[in-house]
Amino acid sequence: MEVPYFDAASTAPLHPLARQALLSALDEGWADPARLYRDGRRARMLLDAARETVAAELGARTDEVVFTTSGTQANHLAVLGALAGNHRNGRHLVHSAVEHSSVLHAAERAEADGGSASAVPVDRQGRVDPTAFAAALRPDTALAALQSANHEVGTVQPVAEAAALCAERGVPLLVDAAQSLGPLGSPAGWSLLTASAHKWGGPAGVGVLAVRKGVRYRSPLPADDREAGRVPGHVNVPAVIAAAVALRAVRQEAAALNPLQHARIARLREALPGLVPDLAVLGPAEERLPHLLTFSCLYVDGEALLGELDRAGFAVTSGSSCTSSTLTPSHVLAAMGVLTEGNIRVSLPAGCEDADIDRFLDVLPNAVAAVRSKLDAPSAAVPTADEVTLDTLGRRCPIPVIELAKHLTDVPVGGMVRVLSDDEAAALDIPAWCEMRSQEYVGSEPAAGLNAVAYLIRRLS
Amino acid sequence: MEVPYFDAASTAPLHPLARQALLSALDEGWADPARLYRDGRRARMLLDAARETVAAELGARTDEVVFTTSGTQANHLAVLGALAGNHRNGRHLVHSAVEHSSVLHAAERAEADGGSASAVPVDRQGRVDPTAFAAALRPDTALAALQSANHEVGTVQPVAEAAALCAERGVPLLVDAAQSLGPLGSPAGWSLLTASAHKWGGPAGVGVLAVRKGVRYRSPLPADDREAGRVPGHVNVPAVIAAAVALRAVRQEAAALNPLQHARIARLREALPGLVPDLAVLGPAEERLPHLLTFSCLYVDGEALLGELDRAGFAVTSGSSCTSSTLTPSHVLAAMGVLTEGNIRVSLPAGCEDADIDRFLDVLPNAVAAVRSKLDAPSAAVPTADEVTLDTLGRRCPIPVIELAKHLTDVPVGGMVRVLSDDEAAALDIPAWCEMRSQEYVGSEPAAGLNAVAYLIRRLS
Repeated sequence: MEVPYFDAASTAPLHPLARQALLSALDEGWADPARLYRDGRRARMLLDAARETVAAELGARTDEVVFTTSGTQANHLAVLGALAGNHRNGRHLVHSAVEHSSVLHAAERAEADGGSASAVPVDRQGRVDPTAFAAALRPDTALAALQSANHEVGTVQPVAEAAALCAERGVPLLVDAAQSLGPLGSPAGWSLLTASAHKWGGPAGVGVLAVRKGVRYRSPLPADDREAGRVPGHVNVPAVIAAAVALRAVRQEAAALNPLQHARIARLREALPGLVPDLAVLGPAEERLPHLLTFSCLYVDGEALLGELDRAGFAVTSGSSCTSSTLTPSHVLAAMGVLTEGNIRVSLPAGCEDADIDRFLDVLPNAVAAVRSKLDAPSAAVPTADEVTLDTLGRRCPIPVIELAKHLTDVPVGGMVRVLSDDEAAALDIPAWCEMRSQEYVGSEPAAGLNAVAYLIRRLS
Repeated sequence: MEVPYFDAASTAPLHPLARQALLSALDEGWADPARLYRDGRRARMLLDAARETVAAELGARTDEVVFTTSGTQANHLAVLGALAGNHRNGRHLVHSAVEHSSVLHAAERAEADGGSASAVPVDRQGRVDPTAFAAALRPDTALAALQSANHEVGTVQPVAEAAALCAERGVPLLVDAAQSLGPLGSPAGWSLLTASAHKWGGPAGVGVLAVRKGVRYRSPLPADDREAGRVPGHVNVPAVIAAAVALRAVRQEAAALNPLQHARIARLREALPGLVPDLAVLGPAEERLPHLLTFSCLYVDGEALLGELDRAGFAVTSGSSCTSSTLTPSHVLAAMGVLTEGNIRVSLPAGCEDADIDRFLDVLPNAVAAVRSKLDAPSAAVPTADEVTLDTLGRRCPIPVIELAKHLTDVPVGGMVRVLSDDEAAALDIPAWCEMRSQEYVGSEPAAGLNAVAYLIRRLS
C-alpha cells in the first residue's frame, strides 16, 4: 500500500487480523464444505462460525445471512429477488436518487423486464426526506431501497424513519450498508441488508445479503443448493472467514477510531475552502460518515487533479464527469444539484495519521493551481459587449465553466452570456457555478441548428 | 490438508506457486483496478497480465476472456448469455444428459423463461455420440453444450467432432472444461468455454468465461462496466492472479504428471473388482481423465462407506443417491444406466503418491465389508416359494437391492420376485443389479393402492 492512501471507500486495506485469518483458512478451510470427510466438515464448521459472527454484527439470525461474491452481486440479488418474491404486490421499486450504481442497474434491469421504478430526490446535502420517500410508495410497490450512507459524499440517510414508514405500508426496505457497516454498524429497520467485505477491511470476493425471516424472496438466478439457494457456486470459505474476522475487528475498533476520523475530516472541511480558491465542500457537516469528505474545485479537470495528487503520493478518487471510466457526470452530485467539476473524494483508512492530513493540506493548493494554470482558468477583465456568445462545442468539462467565468466580465452587470455546449456535464455545472458565484442562471434552450444547448447567464455583480 | 486426499475433482489443493502468488498479490494487487492512482494502476497491470496468461492457455484473445466468481457462475452466464445473444435463431438448447448441474440448472431457468432444451443421451460409458448430438440440433437451436470430460466418471467427450458438426449448422458450442483444463488443456472447437480455478489448483472465487469474437452474447445480469460488462462486481484481483499462476504451473506439469496418474487409476481399475465382491468400475478405460475413477458397490450405503473411508483417513466423495445433500440419484449415473448404489469417486491430486494407492487398496475391502455387515447384506439360501413379494416401502437405497439379492434364492430358477419400493433410486439400481447378476429384469408397474412401484425380476440362475 502506498501512503497516504485516501480511497478507503473504494477498497479498504486488508485488516491485519483478516490477513492472518485468510492465511490460516487457506490451510484449515480450503476443502468443499458440502463434503462429508474431515476436511470438508472442518470447512463447514468454519463457514458456520463466520456466518454466526456476521449475523451477530448485523443483529440477524444465521439463517437470514448468506455470503455473495461482492456487494454488487448482493444488491443485484436483493433488488431482483425481493421484487420477484413480492410480485403479487406489484413490480414497482422506490429508491433514492443517490443509491449505488448496482442498485440503479438492477432497477434498470427490472424495468426492462416490465417493472417500474421511482427515484426519490435528495436535498443539496444528498439527504432523502423520509416523508417524501414514503410518499413515493404506491399500492403496487414491491420494494423500497435506501442506502445507509452515501458512497460519494458521506451523507447518513434517515433509514430508521424511512423503515418505520415502509413498515406501516407493508413494503420491505432494502438497506445498502456497504459504506457504513464497518464504522457505524448495522442500521435499524432493514428488511434486506447488503454489504461488501472489502469495504470494511475484509478481502475481495465476499459480499453479504441478509433477508429477514418472513420477507418474501425468490432467487433470480438458476437453482443451486449452496447458500440457502440464494448464491450459486462454490463458497469461498477462506475469504468468508477472513471477512468475518475483519468485521468483528473493525466493529470493536470503531468506538475509538470514529472520533479520530471525524476530527480529521472536520479539519479538512474547515481548512480547504480557505486554502484553495473556488473550492466547495459537498455534503453535510453532521450525520455523515466519519472518514469521508468530497469537494469540488471550479475550473479543474478532475482527472488531471487526480494525476497531480498521485504524483504527490496521494491516492484519491473522483465522482467528477472528468474521470476516465465514464463521461457522464456522477448521478449523486447531479441529484444534489451541486458542482461536479474538479470533484475529489477523500476517504481515510483506519491507518490514517494526522500527518497525512497535514501533508494533504500542504499539497492540494499547488496541485489545484497546477491544473488551473494548464487550463487557462479565468482572471478579471473589462466588459466588451452587452451580450456575448461563447462557443464551447466539442469541449468537455471543465472548459464550458472556465469560458463562462473568463468571459462573464466581457458584459456589464445586467448583461447576458450565452454558452453553447454539447457536454452533458454543463447542464449541472453551469447552474451550480451561478449559485456559487451569485449570478443569475436564466435557463437553457436548444441551440438552433446545432446538436447542442445554449445556457443563458445574466451577470449580477 | 489430510493425506490421502482423493477428492481433487471437488477442489484441488492450492498449488504452492498459487499460494505464493496470492500472498504477493495481497500486497501488490489489492487496490481497485479501475482507479487512476499508482496502486490502482498496478492492480490493473497485474489483472491484465493474469488475463494474458489464461488467454494463452486457452488459445484465446485476451478480449475473449473474463473472470467470473466461480465455474458455476461461468456456466450460468454462458448458457443464459449465449441464449439471449442468439435469441433471433430461437431459444432451443442442446446439451448432453451428463453435463454439470450448473448447466442443467441454467437450462431449467431458460425453460422456465419460455425456452426449450433437449438432453442427448450417453452410452454406458457416459460418452455422447457426436452424430446423435448433432441430430438434436434444430433450426431454432441457439446453443449447444458439451462438457470436455465428465465430472463423475471421467469420460472424455468427443468435443472436436461435436464442434465440427455444430459449426456446420452455425450453432455455437459451449464447452464446460472445468474438469479437464488442468490436465488436458484447452479443448478444440469451442465457441464458449468455462472453467473453475479451484479445480486446477487455483484459489476459490475465480471462474473463467471465454466467448469467441463473433459469438453473440448478451449479459443476463444487470449492467456493470467491469469484465467487459459480463461479470458485475469488484474484481478479486489477488485471487485472479493466483489462479493464472496455478494454471500455467499445472499445464507445465501435466506432461509429466498425467502418465503417473493414468497408471495409478489403471492400477485401481484392475485391482478393485478382485478385492471387493460385487464391485463395478464405471466409465471407460481409455479416453478418460487421468486422475479420476468411479466405482459402485452392491449392497452398500454410499454415505456409510464415505464415513468408513473417512475414519481410515481417506477423503473421497460419492455420486450415490445415498449421500447427504440430496436423496435423488446422480443424474450422470442414471443417464449411463449403471448402478448408483454404494458409489465412490476417487480423484487424485497432483501430490498423490503410489503408497496412497496401496493403502486405499488395503483399506477398501474392510470398509465395504463393515458397511455390508451392518446392512445385513445377502448370502445364499434355499427356495421357499415360486413367487415372493418383498415390501421395502419407506426404506432407502441400498435396502431394496439388498432385499432383492437376499430373497432371489427364495424362488427357484424361473421364479419371480416382486420388489415394492417408493425409493426413486430403485428404478435405476434394480435393473442395474439384474444386469450385473445376469438375472432378468421383467419391468415395473404401479403397486395397486400404494404410492409405490412394483419391480419384477425373474431368477435365471
